[in-house]
Amino acid sequence: MKLECMPCFVRQVLMELDGSDITMEGKEKALRASLRRLSEMDMTLPPVGVSLILHRLLREWGVGEDPYRELKMSSTSKALKILPDLERMLDENGDRLKMAAMMAIAGNVIDYGAANLLSLERTLEDAVHGGMAVDDFEDFGRELLKADTLSYHLDNSGEVVLDGLFIREIIRERPDLRIRAFVKNSPLLNDVTLKDAVDGGLGAVDNVELIELPHEGWVSEDDIDSDEAEIIIAKGQGNYESLSESGRKNLFFLLVVKCDVVSRELGADIGEMIFKRS
Amino acid sequence: MKLECMPCFVRQVLMELDGSDITMEGKEKALRASLRRLSEMDMTLPPVGVSLILHRLLREWGVGEDPYRELKMSSTSKALKILPDLERMLDENGDRLKMAAMMAIAGNVIDYGAANLLSLERTLEDAVHGGMAVDDFEDFGRELLKADTLSYHLDNSGEVVLDGLFIREIIRERPDLRIRAFVKNSPLLNDVTLKDAVDGGLGAVDNVELIELPHEGWVSEDDIDSDEAEIIIAKGQGNYESLSESGRKNLFFLLVVKCDVVSRELGADIGEMIFKRS
Repeated sequence: MKLECMPCFVRQVLMELDGSDITMEGKEKALRASLRRLSEMDMTLPPVGVSLILHRLLREWGVGEDPYRELKMSSTSKALKILPDLERMLDENGDRLKMAAMMAIAGNVIDYGAANLLSLERTLEDAVHGGMAVDDFEDFGRELLKADTLSYHLDNSGEVVLDGLFIREIIRERPDLRIRAFVKNSPLLNDVTLKDAVDGGLGAVDNVELIELPHEGWVSEDDIDSDEAEIIIAKGQGNYESLSESGRKNLFFLLVVKCDVVSRELGADIGEMIFKRS
Repeated sequence: MKLECMPCFVRQVLMELDGSDITMEGKEKALRASLRRLSEMDMTLPPVGVSLILHRLLREWGVGEDPYRELKMSSTSKALKILPDLERMLDENGDRLKMAAMMAIAGNVIDYGAANLLSLERTLEDAVHGGMAVDDFEDFGRELLKADTLSYHLDNSGEVVLDGLFIREIIRERPDLRIRAFVKNSPLLNDVTLKDAVDGGLGAVDNVELIELPHEGWVSEDDIDSDEAEIIIAKGQGNYESLSESGRKNLFFLLVVKCDVVSRELGADIGEMIFKRS
């Protein structure tokens, strides 16, 4: 994490408190405890590691296991609602696979909070007309032709509906490909859990095995190093922050840039789409 | 202050650290100390009170007296550059006084950080076409006809250039009016100090006496209560947050809404312009 990530963590604390039913006084105490904990935080942790520590702390203060639950359900149902429109767009488009990839990436804006699907549509439109800021899609397409196995690390609820769209297009290209789609084993922020992935339609896709991470928290470099899949897709900024140092080849980062730190690192503006080979 | 103000304070700390030349290690220590201080903060303080405490703390850690100095100078010079365009707009407009008031309010967006004059222009354009979210300007115009004295509490550097434009129009309406324009007596964030006001052209306006607040920090209700001016103008969200409970009549708040807390309180969206009688 960087020093400048700090305001985001405080915002996350406020969001978890906001979704809880503890008293105003309890919220104030929990916020003070979070600030104290942040003042002593290990700065070598990736951002998601800090989020996890805060999430555990807030549970001690009475915030529920899954404070983003309602937000997650609402973003899933909104994404399911626009799915037929997106499928129609695919039918009208020449390069189905790339278009579906861009839709999955654009879905990453759902992370912003209020599941603002207008900005999803705008993000997608910008990308279709202006292209992606980093575009290693051709590389991915070449690798896909050779691969028999693929791991897909999912990111946010709601967004997972569009990952499903992309995964179905991947399977259309390579009907024998075996896909393992990874979800978190406990709810952190609006990350996809097994239930969220099933709600988003990923439970019913042939070829796809839904797997919970074997440990709480975030995808580590060790997870990636020990994965024998020929292609690994890591969705979202959190996974990029955790895995960008990985030497693993055939690791592809798909995300929308959401803060200055990642913007500087990738040389792309906030809001731009990234399809980057590690 | 509200719990949800906390991320903004952390952002302010980062901005002050960013403008300083202390080492990375020193910045980390200062940020940790700030978070610790925030975890113990008196929540009954107005937001500017919290900013002042953090500002003092950061000076102990080696951040200079005026960390926003360069940003302030650049926003002043940018504002001076568009001044002729704004004056031309006034010449072409029917109601000079109201138009100048709206320009002064729109100038309040300069607070956002990078002195983004594009968004100043957009804010102004929205207001000209869509009106202000709260518009007690007519009330102000009536009071102005009767008044002999007016106090004007300035807010941010850069913005002060547009306050000058408004003040000159006020004087054009009431050439005998005596105006006291208040600045901060020490630099807090991008608040106007005496030097900033002079840089922004307010030193040379007849009728206007530039006065430093008699104490460090923010304008208090006591300051307002003991002020004998017939009209008081308070610019900006910080002054609104500090003085909104004041029972003082003929106090006018001019600001652009910049956060959810004030947005809820005023029933206006972020980015909307407010000309509100107390």
